[in-house]
Amino acid sequence: MKRRNLLSGTGTGIAGITLAAPALAQGIRELRMITDWPHNVPGTFDAAVQLGEAIQAATNGRLRIEVSPAGAVVRPFETLDAVAAGLADMYHSADYYFESKSPGFTFFAAVPFGLTAQEQFAWVRYGGGQALWDALGADHGVKSILCGSTGSQMGGWFTNEIASAEGFRGLRYRMPGLGGEVLRRMDATVVTVAGGEISAALRSGALDASEWIGPWADMALGLHEVANFYYYPGFHEPGTTLTLGINKGVWESFAPSDRRLIEEVAAGQFARSLAEFNANNAIWLARLRSAGKTQIRRFDDVLLRRLLRQSREVVAEAGSRDGHARRIAESHRAFQASIRDWSDVAERAFLNARGLD
Amino acid sequence: MKRRNLLSGTGTGIAGITLAAPALAQGIRELRMITDWPHNVPGTFDAAVQLGEAIQAATNGRLRIEVSPAGAVVRPFETLDAVAAGLADMYHSADYYFESKSPGFTFFAAVPFGLTAQEQFAWVRYGGGQALWDALGADHGVKSILCGSTGSQMGGWFTNEIASAEGFRGLRYRMPGLGGEVLRRMDATVVTVAGGEISAALRSGALDASEWIGPWADMALGLHEVANFYYYPGFHEPGTTLTLGINKGVWESFAPSDRRLIEEVAAGQFARSLAEFNANNAIWLARLRSAGKTQIRRFDDVLLRRLLRQSREVVAEAGSRDGHARRIAESHRAFQASIRDWSDVAERAFLNARGLD
Repeated sequence: MKRRNLLSGTGTGIAGITLAAPALAQGIRELRMITDWPHNVPGTFDAAVQLGEAIQAATNGRLRIEVSPAGAVVRPFETLDAVAAGLADMYHSADYYFESKSPGFTFFAAVPFGLTAQEQFAWVRYGGGQALWDALGADHGVKSILCGSTGSQMGGWFTNEIASAEGFRGLRYRMPGLGGEVLRRMDATVVTVAGGEISAALRSGALDASEWIGPWADMALGLHEVANFYYYPGFHEPGTTLTLGINKGVWESFAPSDRRLIEEVAAGQFARSLAEFNANNAIWLARLRSAGKTQIRRFDDVLLRRLLRQSREVVAEAGSRDGHARRIAESHRAFQASIRDWSDVAERAFLNARGLD
Repeated sequence: MKRRNLLSGTGTGIAGITLAAPALAQGIRELRMITDWPHNVPGTFDAAVQLGEAIQAATNGRLRIEVSPAGAVVRPFETLDAVAAGLADMYHSADYYFESKSPGFTFFAAVPFGLTAQEQFAWVRYGGGQALWDALGADHGVKSILCGSTGSQMGGWFTNEIASAEGFRGLRYRMPGLGGEVLRRMDATVVTVAGGEISAALRSGALDASEWIGPWADMALGLHEVANFYYYPGFHEPGTTLTLGINKGVWESFAPSDRRLIEEVAAGQFARSLAEFNANNAIWLARLRSAGKTQIRRFDDVLLRRLLRQSREVVAEAGSRDGHARRIAESHRAFQASIRDWSDVAERAFLNARGLD
């Protein structure tokens, strides 16, 4: 663990700050954002940098945000603990990385067969999600805000064709979180491999299959060079949310207008990052098709039905493990039951109609 | 036309301002936002008010936005002209209302069988849309920014069942814009009726069918009480964008940090308003189903295919009428061709898979 002394804390009493007197006189505040994103993977680390830059620009430099990639300050996935302890002011991550603290966190990132990006935003802001997230965060020392989305992901890269649910049996498949637990119940062998090592593991045969994000990020890792089958849809991550988690004391030290500014900018970056993932995934999917080497396949309906059944079980179990998780899972389930009919009538029916030509 | 003297213009030289000295000393600036939204229809006027409130809160009251409903300052749909002329600082509207100035405007609001809300955001920000919108706006005296979305709309309310494309023949159908032109080519009789008068017109038989927005707004107008068939999808408005249009001189008078703040807040309100429409549409659709009086039907595939063909023609013609429209339509078409494959593989495939249970 590598710490630095440039930790902010104006009004928080957490740590000394090293700002020069002129900066202090102008009310300039330096804030440290740590992330769980490697700097060389497109989309996620960029999203953190752009969020920091947007807050800085919109405050005319009053709030300065220094953004660090995964591992620069603390080990990956220790970001929430580090922020809660005041080692940094805020993190940019996906909350399913904190599932071991409470499965409640997972519901604010991605749930198998759960909510799409825009449904997730609607749940958090209009379905009671934010209040439950605030209660969860309060117990873990952070204030959490939606600040980005990868959109719908892909099901993953496979070295061989998957003709049926039986094809998952014994498959060495990299998939973290609740999606991984679903695969375990399909008799797959779930393997943990860091993003940067997936390509080598598929090439050596240590892995038979792996999900990552979508064409843009996956091709940056070279996954299209080591596996020929690319399956969709990404049932396990239908719209993964990125989170800005701010040390609770730091959050409370902000003036109400700065809290509001951060919330508004974060919501804007949610829309922006989702747009960036979608626009770039479209470009890279087209490149993949024109290269002609990859079989882009839809999981068949029988397999999807089994994945759906297993997912319901896994999600229900995750939502029964502690008090926060129970309340969060129930709210998420009720909201999904409500929004689903509308999404089917609106977005789904439109996308299917547009495909009729 | 009712004008007031409280027109802003610090640094713009447009009009005198009447702020008290203490406000000026604190750098407080009062700005006037006019809209094309009646104050009693949910979603749209609210979106304008919330945008104004968000800018005000995030600037700690430095920028104060006074929001007026449709008709309070100028006649509906004269908002762009009024803002360009400096009678108000900004408008909140949907740009298809300005189609008569250039069909190019339509592409920034809704296009039949065009882009969904999140695809539209991706086109404007990552597909070259904003630069073309800026060029169009520069010729009409405004800077335009995405600031809201109604999401996918419904196809509309019908007093009788529509069994086939022939059912549209002679139908007195309220639908504005390019959607209306599509209906004309289906031999419908397109009727113009203001929002507040749709219900009476359906009841009296002056109309056989009418679109509006979706369950939340439509039921506020009482449309469910005067027509028994509610059809989807809203092929004509798959994700209608709301626009913040700012007087060009006023925009240029803002400090770069305030321009950035307004852009970020507007993007945040895009996500927020879309979420509000979706969450509320889900609630009102459920109420509609449980009331048991309305037949909620999907347009059949043969009809949708004809609507799709006619829409392509109408959109291509709209995109050939002037230089701006040509460039904008070509960019929109190219982006749609690119994003569509990705949306089918990602969002559409996921929503269909989730529906398999």
